[in-house]
Amino acid sequence: MKNVRQIKINENLQLKKLIDDLENTGFNAKRLANACKIYERMVKDKECTIFFSLAGAMVPAGMQNILIDMIESGFIDILVTTGANLTHDIAEALGFHHLQGNLAIEDKTDKDLHDDHINRIYDVFMPNNVYEGMEDFIKTLDFDLNMSVKDFLTYLGHQLPDEPKSVLKTCANHEIPIFCPAFTDCGLAMQLSFSYPKINLNHFQDLQDMINLAWDAKTAGVCIIGGGVPKNYVLQAMQFSPNSAQFAIQITMDRPETGGLSGAELREAISWGKINEKAQFSTVVTDATIALPIILSYLKTVT
Amino acid sequence: MKNVRQIKINENLQLKKLIDDLENTGFNAKRLANACKIYERMVKDKECTIFFSLAGAMVPAGMQNILIDMIESGFIDILVTTGANLTHDIAEALGFHHLQGNLAIEDKTDKDLHDDHINRIYDVFMPNNVYEGMEDFIKTLDFDLNMSVKDFLTYLGHQLPDEPKSVLKTCANHEIPIFCPAFTDCGLAMQLSFSYPKINLNHFQDLQDMINLAWDAKTAGVCIIGGGVPKNYVLQAMQFSPNSAQFAIQITMDRPETGGLSGAELREAISWGKINEKAQFSTVVTDATIALPIILSYLKTVT
Amino acid sequence: MKNVRQIKINENLQLKKLIDDLENTGFNAKRLANACKIYERMVKDKECTIFFSLAGAMVPAGMQNILIDMIESGFIDILVTTGANLTHDIAEALGFHHLQGNLAIEDKTDKDLHDDHINRIYDVFMPNNVYEGMEDFIKTLDFDLNMSVKDFLTYLGHQLPDEPKSVLKTCANHEIPIFCPAFTDCGLAMQLSFSYPKINLNHFQDLQDMINLAWDAKTAGVCIIGGGVPKNYVLQAMQFSPNSAQFAIQITMDRPETGGLSGAELREAISWGKINEKAQFSTVVTDATIALPIILSYLKTVT
Amino acid sequence: MKNVRQIKINENLQLKKLIDDLENTGFNAKRLANACKIYERMVKDKECTIFFSLAGAMVPAGMQNILIDMIESGFIDILVTTGANLTHDIAEALGFHHLQGNLAIEDKTDKDLHDDHINRIYDVFMPNNVYEGMEDFIKTLDFDLNMSVKDFLTYLGHQLPDEPKSVLKTCANHEIPIFCPAFTDCGLAMQLSFSYPKINLNHFQDLQDMINLAWDAKTAGVCIIGGGVPKNYVLQAMQFSPNSAQFAIQITMDRPETGGLSGAELREAISWGKINEKAQFSTVVTDATIALPIILSYLKTVT
Repeated sequence: MKNVRQIKINENLQLKKLIDDLENTGFNAKRLANACKIYERMVKDKECTIFFSLAGAMVPAGMQNILIDMIESGFIDILVTTGANLTHDIAEALGFHHLQGNLAIEDKTDKDLHDDHINRIYDVFMPNNVYEGMEDFIKTLDFDLNMSVKDFLTYLGHQLPDEPKSVLKTCANHEIPIFCPAFTDCGLAMQLSFSYPKINLNHFQDLQDMINLAWDAKTAGVCIIGGGVPKNYVLQAMQFSPNSAQFAIQITMDRPETGGLSGAELREAISWGKINEKAQFSTVVTDATIALPIILSYLKTVT
Repeated sequence: MKNVRQIKINENLQLKKLIDDLENTGFNAKRLANACKIYERMVKDKECTIFFSLAGAMVPAGMQNILIDMIESGFIDILVTTGANLTHDIAEALGFHHLQGNLAIEDKTDKDLHDDHINRIYDVFMPNNVYEGMEDFIKTLDFDLNMSVKDFLTYLGHQLPDEPKSVLKTCANHEIPIFCPAFTDCGLAMQLSFSYPKINLNHFQDLQDMINLAWDAKTAGVCIIGGGVPKNYVLQAMQFSPNSAQFAIQITMDRPETGGLSGAELREAISWGKINEKAQFSTVVTDATIALPIILSYLKTVT
Repeated sequence: MKNVRQIKINENLQLKKLIDDLENTGFNAKRLANACKIYERMVKDKECTIFFSLAGAMVPAGMQNILIDMIESGFIDILVTTGANLTHDIAEALGFHHLQGNLAIEDKTDKDLHDDHINRIYDVFMPNNVYEGMEDFIKTLDFDLNMSVKDFLTYLGHQLPDEPKSVLKTCANHEIPIFCPAFTDCGLAMQLSFSYPKINLNHFQDLQDMINLAWDAKTAGVCIIGGGVPKNYVLQAMQFSPNSAQFAIQITMDRPETGGLSGAELREAISWGKINEKAQFSTVVTDATIALPIILSYLKTVT
Repeated sequence: MKNVRQIKINENLQLKKLIDDLENTGFNAKRLANACKIYERMVKDKECTIFFSLAGAMVPAGMQNILIDMIESGFIDILVTTGANLTHDIAEALGFHHLQGNLAIEDKTDKDLHDDHINRIYDVFMPNNVYEGMEDFIKTLDFDLNMSVKDFLTYLGHQLPDEPKSVLKTCANHEIPIFCPAFTDCGLAMQLSFSYPKINLNHFQDLQDMINLAWDAKTAGVCIIGGGVPKNYVLQAMQFSPNSAQFAIQITMDRPETGGLSGAELREAISWGKINEKAQFSTVVTDATIALPIILSYLKTVT
């Protein structure tokens, strides 16, 4: 066993150095460093396909460029996410903005916000007129109503402007598939449903495509941000990967004790054959808005 | 303001009495009592349509009969749940069982469980041969491959045996619609996809049906167990209910601070117009396996 | 391995029956049932000394009578608690009351409460004039300024009225020692310090008494409500108990991942020799205001 | 209201730049940035006395030098901590080390560790022979058995070697008072009690000294790491500071819903008059092992 080393922090510290030092500590600091190192190995292993699951309101919180950068840098091969993140991504792509709220000040109740046509996401606010802009955009679309969600999202990405950048457009340009298994559970899908009443995007085609991608991945790595459907969708596919996942990291604030998958420990997935029994893995219990920027800067520095 | 009353607990205490007393206390005890009382009002309001969202591994944990009982008793009008709960429901309906594990004893690692073909869900185990039995059942089906998920689940319920009882069969018999927005995110859907490669259940038809049900509900109440997609799918529909939700209870262990919807406070939904600004609501931060049996017994006693 | 049993809940359900049924389930429901059964064995084992640690604002939340009842029923042999619980216990004993707040209504900010001389404890409020009443009481005391905290608390209990009942008076009457290792960390101690500037209660005498009590307990059981100093004080003493703790239950909402003792799993204490490697133990992750009333009713019914 | 800005992360990123960018985001990322900025203002306000409360096993986790550096840099004026941190600080000062465990590997049960004389603190291990070394050191002491805990800790610091550095020695050298309100709740105090049976360190003298320090602080700032007794001890003293706390930051993983002070929101302290109603404050829900190194590097860079 190695000693815990009492780390020394300097001014002008770079994140790369911080992570190298945290590897010698304990608790979530060590696990965050381990997660960075495991992700680094995924990226440097040219055979490795990286499945990235993303839940949580990351775009409203200002993490959109981080996702874009990770895609452009080759740190994500397959993206599985929620409809909410896609909805907010389109809002920003169309020139709308999220706003910084302040819960401490207590000067606005939720009733006040409702009267002001502002929707709250914890301490981030979104003006309701975003939906009007999105509706105008959606009415300009022309697509096969029976395509898979993945293919629709690629199509959608191509219709978005180059600037401001968006996750959807970047994925489309880089031919990174986006899966959204619970696509009808978001504002974007509701608007599609109103504008195109006969829409029937093929969710089972997505499932088959996802399983095939897992099947083709002799070396698979997973990066799980938050829990929910994206986490399970990636992990259930790993059962079909020839060697299941050989690398796995997870950033979450959910607890394991309630038995829900969102908070489940990664090693539980070994029993299911979703993660390889010899896999390298690390769960970090922290807010993804803190962990993701650190992980990205580390990866950009070492690759 | 009312005084906190120092409650007195007796032997042979009935849950009804406990809840009545907890209403005079504080913290989660009071909120649990409030949730019971609000649910009681939903049930007694003959105009109220009760939307019930269910995430988390409730069937593996032994809560299947509680759900069945709530449906039979008229405490659930519309059920929104995860594919995992449906998969486990079918497993029990086909005569399989989940097993009680013991994490404290530490005598089995996840690798050991994998070698023994046993899948772990925190401290509940499921033998892998469940999937073989389910496959045999699925091969006997004969259905329209383009129906909605809701209609498919009703069909599926009718194919299951009367005994042992199941959530699916009970909903089918009582004409309670089940929505499963992320249906492809479960073992059941994967097996359907293998047996019926052309399957394309219409998820957007579900969305339209759900919105219509909300539209028709002049008085709407929501009961949210866990977070995830079921929670959001119910709440997004409430925007289309003429008066949005007028009653709301939520049982969860998730936190609000990360900005994810699973842990969001109910009052946040007021800003979105999903919950009425005059609604009665209560969030209880506790494990649903403890809260649900208490709520059910309370409701059965007072109605 | 035993099957998970799908439990059936009836109207007029008694808590004893609920617990018996929950023993056949999973997750925190099972663990709560296990905790009840282990506590039952502690109580029925006539050789067993029960060390009870209590953190968290249980008296403000209306749980004072539960503690009193547990002491009178012989379910607690040694009590370790926080100064806050003692301060609130005295407030109630002197005829003051805590009040039920309502955070959902958002009609009072913390600034408003401060202007109104009301102190907030989450959703429970305490009028500031409690301190004036307590000051008057404290000025009537006459005690050895160098006694141990434990002996002072026994003295203090005897000075309190018979009605309304209090934890302090009940412990004094039943000769149940109360330890309060961080006694100076509360309003009661601050007022003592102002009224008796030369006060020097002997905290090390307490420590020696506590270790001796552990030493004398051939069979020791621990019940830990919340974490903090009371938890550690009980567990560190168990190292001196001849067989360390042979029964242990813990009710907490704290997490283990940060490495703090409050959220640490009970089995970690085996490595330290604080809990016997053959001990029966159960951690329940739930709010104590929900778990404690259930545990007490169960114990009163079976003993 | 300001827009959320979608942040851009580069390679070789410095922590100072990261924090500046996170200020424009949401959720815990923004709150961490706010906490850094508020701490910066505390440090730059020459009138401000900084009260620093520290719970949690920070020294075992490798954060000892961070604390030492913060003291040497003038970022801590008064330290309130747990006996556990002091015990581990002395262990490192005497040349012992903590070890990095690996919970994922599951190759050691707590029983195995006990057999190997190794104590577990989540994923950090401490060999039991630390206590023998500490006992030898303690036997060399010569001190007034009735001094305050604070004065004893200053004396103790002076007895420790210059190298390896320790929190105790650094505080002694820089005349930074250390308060440890629950001092008897740790291994160090137990050993003192065995070696000096008549020891009676004066805890009430500490309380009076603490209140006087608060009284003298016209401008007071608090930094709370973890909850527990150190948090409450600092906050209760703030009631006696002429303007109560005007700056406050808190790093914790505890929840408010159970009503315990550890997880209480900072704004609750406004109702008690512990935090000024015009104070700047920020709570960050994250592991302190991740937040503290970031905060320290930020402070060293800007001051």
